Formats: sequence, structure tokens, C-alpha cells
Amino acid sequence: MRGAIIYAPGDVRVEERDDPTIIHPTDAIIRLSATCVCGSDLWPYRGFEPIDGPTPMGHEYVGVVQETGREVRNIKPGDFVIGSFMASDGTCEICQAGYQSRCAHVEYVGAGGAQAEYLRVPLADGTLIATRGQPDAGLIPSLLAASDVLGTGWFGAVAADVGPGKTVAVVGDGAVGLLAVLAASQLGAERIIAVSRHEPRQQLALEFGATDIVTGRGDEGVAQVKEMTGSYGAHSVIEAVGSQDSMMQAIRSARHGGHVGYVGVSHGVQLPGEELFYAEVHLHGGPAPVRRFLPDLIRLIEEQVIDPGKVFDLSLPLSEAAEGYRAMDERRAIKTLLRP
Amino acid sequence: MRGAIIYAPGDVRVEERDDPTIIHPTDAIIRLSATCVCGSDLWPYRGFEPIDGPTPMGHEYVGVVQETGREVRNIKPGDFVIGSFMASDGTCEICQAGYQSRCAHVEYVGAGGAQAEYLRVPLADGTLIATRGQPDAGLIPSLLAASDVLGTGWFGAVAADVGPGKTVAVVGDGAVGLLAVLAASQLGAERIIAVSRHEPRQQLALEFGATDIVTGRGDEGVAQVKEMTGSYGAHSVIEAVGSQDSMMQAIRSARHGGHVGYVGVSHGVQLPGEELFYAEVHLHGGPAPVRRFLPDLIRLIEEQVIDPGKVFDLSLPLSEAAEGYRAMDERRAIKTLLRP
Repeated sequence: MRGAIIYAPGDVRVEERDDPTIIHPTDAIIRLSATCVCGSDLWPYRGFEPIDGPTPMGHEYVGVVQETGREVRNIKPGDFVIGSFMASDGTCEICQAGYQSRCAHVEYVGAGGAQAEYLRVPLADGTLIATRGQPDAGLIPSLLAASDVLGTGWFGAVAADVGPGKTVAVVGDGAVGLLAVLAASQLGAERIIAVSRHEPRQQLALEFGATDIVTGRGDEGVAQVKEMTGSYGAHSVIEAVGSQDSMMQAIRSARHGGHVGYVGVSHGVQLPGEELFYAEVHLHGGPAPVRRFLPDLIRLIEEQVIDPGKVFDLSLPLSEAAEGYRAMDERRAIKTLLRP
Repeated sequence: MRGAIIYAPGDVRVEERDDPTIIHPTDAIIRLSATCVCGSDLWPYRGFEPIDGPTPMGHEYVGVVQETGREVRNIKPGDFVIGSFMASDGTCEICQAGYQSRCAHVEYVGAGGAQAEYLRVPLADGTLIATRGQPDAGLIPSLLAASDVLGTGWFGAVAADVGPGKTVAVVGDGAVGLLAVLAASQLGAERIIAVSRHEPRQQLALEFGATDIVTGRGDEGVAQVKEMTGSYGAHSVIEAVGSQDSMMQAIRSARHGGHVGYVGVSHGVQLPGEELFYAEVHLHGGPAPVRRFLPDLIRLIEEQVIDPGKVFDLSLPLSEAAEGYRAMDERRAIKTLLRP
């Protein structure tokens, strides 16, 4: 099969790879209907994460089950399925508490490289959800978004305790940040402040339910949010970048007693204990337990209540994955969908 | 009046000071029935916090109202009152949300130095609560504990989401940690693991409701908690020290998706972002909004459901404050009550 491999920063190639096979009886093999490039894929692409030899890329996927291991019960060949980037058994205490991304037997699905024609998904019963029948082609981008960025933005909003009557600020205007705006809107937030300097992203934020746009970075952005909230700060802040600056902007934008949900993959962040102590915010985040939210998200997409697929503003054949990375790196595209 | 003043690390003296007076019409002056030395007073005493000239000490207090400013409505001279170490207006959005310790008009009551005969309490209406009549002398230590250490331990337990069915670990065996054990027990925790190496403190932890004692520090203590919890870690961990080591022990002792409530005043702590991200715990803490809990705590003390005054294992006249500090510094005493 063909699949994307990263060789070095800026060097992604689509090459022939071995077809995946069932390794464990709990595995499933799926033929990908669509896959995509994640903001977190840009960390190694930009040289901010070490690359240990040629590495298959991609961890977002939807597709049709080709084959299942002998212990798989919940899905069968022919099913159209969606799953999280983290495989989970669904049975341990951590899964039962809704933290499937930190399952006692968690495996990173992306290890198999989802920017490819086929993918092995471990712990298929705990990880995958089948749709009712084959979805319309028009829904596939949104279902693909549910595999990570929608579920991650949603978790950010839940971790930030978003709800009716709340003022929410979202730091980060990538696909996750934009879908956190959508999640906040669905969760009933009264006011949603999107932090963005990029006009096309501001537009999408407004389409997804943002009520206000703030353009300031760092303490300037904090001051703008404070000014809009009677100097208190937002009740809920969602951090969707993962850098020191964005974490501090998020923490400082929240009111005392407020909630910060952080879902940007942390890179080089050190949180100063004393400032955090006196900020007295709630802090929660990490790799999103997308699986917790998937059944609801799939329903909202099937009923066309939400259209998270709008974050894909570039669609390319898998063979052009390199251009998909480049476009996102140069911020010409918010998110690239790849057609295997 | 007489009051304790710190001059330098290890140098606390009881000297003549000016009597406090009403400065703002929202102030009250109280005559102290009892005061005490806090674990956090040991930070400057031990040289870990700068001392900017001679400074009045103490921020825990119970006593009888002597005089009130002309705008004070809720209390009157003669009332026996308890208040938090943070004065709060009780009316701003932060207070209304239960975060009185970060009130928009917050003032540190301890600025007046509560280890003294009299104390000015700002924002008296929002800060002080009067008991029903004069309490029995036997209840005074417990009511004094409610002013800070009990309320702080209680907040730690609430911040750590303690509740029925949960396994709770408490890192820190000072008065706050011990009273966090008591709080966890009152809040219905199923299992309470106290981390302590000191036999008298272990005993008090058991009296307060601890079901297990762990003696390991750092990663050894983490391993012991993991072993006791099916390798998952505790649902709730309360941190009651404020150092880097204790914060990391607390975070690592919690299961993924679990809650860490931290109330030890943070000193030199830097939290590594990546570890925190993959720990995926809830983190919440800061200066305890004791005022939120005071009405309930006073009731539990008056009804003799709880006896938090047991943390005072040394009682001295105010004039011997220096010995009270020394005894705590040398861990000969858990907490020193001072009689003005």
C-alpha cells in the first residue's frame, strides 16, 4: 500500500509500505476512506520533535473494516468505522471513568501511520464505533474530524467546564481551537471569545459560534479578555496550542476559580507554581479521550446539527501529502484532508 | 497591645505594638480569644521567604468584636467571631462563585498581625461569622482551626473532588494535611491514605479517619500508593506542603483523570508541562476560600461532630510565641496555639 513517511523536518514522502496485518486477536484492519494532517504532525515537521528514522505519519482516520481478529465482537467487515487516535480496551477503571486516552492498555493508533491506504487499529472493540450504514460522502470530512480535532476541541471545552451562562475564551485558532469554539457553542456558552489574527480563521470561528474576536497575543490578549469581562477574566478558557506563551495566556485569561482546559500537545512548557497558586484556576487537559464523546459527536454529525468538516479547507490525494503538510506549515491551509 | 513580630529568620519577638483602630467604615476590631502559628509562618522563619523589615505575624484568629465601622451590619460588639485569613467583600462575582480568597477587593487579614491581643479585620461583613452566643472554652481551639487549617484542608479535599467511593491520598502531615484527612473522612471517602513518617502524626491521621499510612517520600511513596490502588493511583490527592517534591509526588500519586487539590503555599515550584499533559489529572488549588466553608465547619464543631482542635498539641501564652515557632520548626509540635 501507499503511505506517508517523515524522514526529516520538512521531508514527508508517500511511499510503498507493507500492508498492515492482524497481529493481536483484538485488532481490526480498516481501508481508509479519508485521513488528514494534524496540527500536532507539524511539531516533528517543524523540527520541534525528534524524528527517530523514517516514521509513518497520521493518526486520524475513518474507513471500512476489512478484517477483524478472532476476539473482535462489536464490529465486522464492511462496517464504516470511526475511532480515536488512542486505542483503548474500554474495560479498565480509567476507560470506565471516561479517560480512554490513558487506558491501562492504551496504544497509539498513529504508530501504524494513518496517512495511508490501510491501518491496523488495536483493541478494536474498545476503540471503534460503526455508523448506521455507509455515510453520505458529504459527511465523511465531519466524521473524520470527530476522530481527533473535534473530539479534542470538545474535550477542551468540557475540561474548561463550559456551560450555559459562561464566558469562554479560546486560545489557538488551528482546527482544534476552531472546533473548541463549535463545542462551546453546542455546550451552551453565553459568550465565546476566539483569539485569532487570521481573517479566514476568524470567519470560521464566527460561523462556529464565536461571539467576539480578540487579536492580542500574550498579555495584550489577556488584557482584552479582562476588559470584556468586567476585569474578572473568562469563566472558561480553552488552550489549543501547547506552547509556554499560549498556556500562560490561557491561565491569565481565566478568572479566579475559573477553568482552563488545555489540549494543545505540550512542548517545552514549565508552569510557575506560585503564579498558578494565586491564579487559583482549575487546570485540566491532556490527550483528549475522544472515545468518550464519539457516540454523541457521530449522532450530531449524522443529524447535521454540526458541520466540523468545514475545518478542511484543502483536500488532496494521499500522493500529495507533502503539499498538505507544506500548506499547513505556511498557514495557507487550516487543515488538509487526504484521499487515499 | 502585645504582638509577635518577626525580625529575621529564627527571630520572633513579642513586643508592644500600637492598638489597631478602625480605618475604613467596613472594618471591625476584635479582641483575640486565641491565635496560633501556621505552617506557612515557617517559610519566612526558615529563611525561605524574604523578610522586609520587622513584620507583625499571624493570620489565624477567633475573638470577640470590640468595635465596628459605621457600615458594618452583620456583626456587633460582643459577638464571638471567626473569619478567614483573607478578607472578602462577599458581593463580587468571585466571592459569589465561592472564591472569597481571591475576592476582587481581597485583603490579607494577616497584614495586621493576628498573633496579638487585638486585630483589625477589613470587610467585616463579608469576612466574619458570629457564633450562636459565646462558645464553650473547649470549642475554641477547634473554632480557631476553622479560621485557616481546617478550612484549607477542607478546600484541598473539595478541590481534589473527594467523595464517596473514592480512594484519597494526602501528601503532607502538617496540620493542614491532617485536617485534609478529617475533611476527606467527612466527605465520605472510602479509603484515605496518609503519607507520614512521624508516629504522633500518623496516630492523629488515624484518629481523623485515615485508613492507611504510607511512609515513602517521592517516587517511593508514589509506588506505594500505586500498589494499594491496583496500579491506577488514587482518585483524589491532596497536596499540603507546597514544595516541588510534594507537588510531583501528589501529581504522580493520582490516577489518570483523577484530581489533585493543592493547598500548600507554593515555593519554588515549576510544573513540567509535558508530564502534566500525559498525567491528565485535574489540578486545582491556591489560597483556600475558607469563608465558603465556614458556616458548615462552625456547625460541625458546635455539634461536636468534628474536633479539629486536636492539631494543637502545644498551647502557650502569647508571650512565648518564639518557643511556639521553635517547637514547630523542630517538629516537636504539630501546631502551636497562642493565648493572648
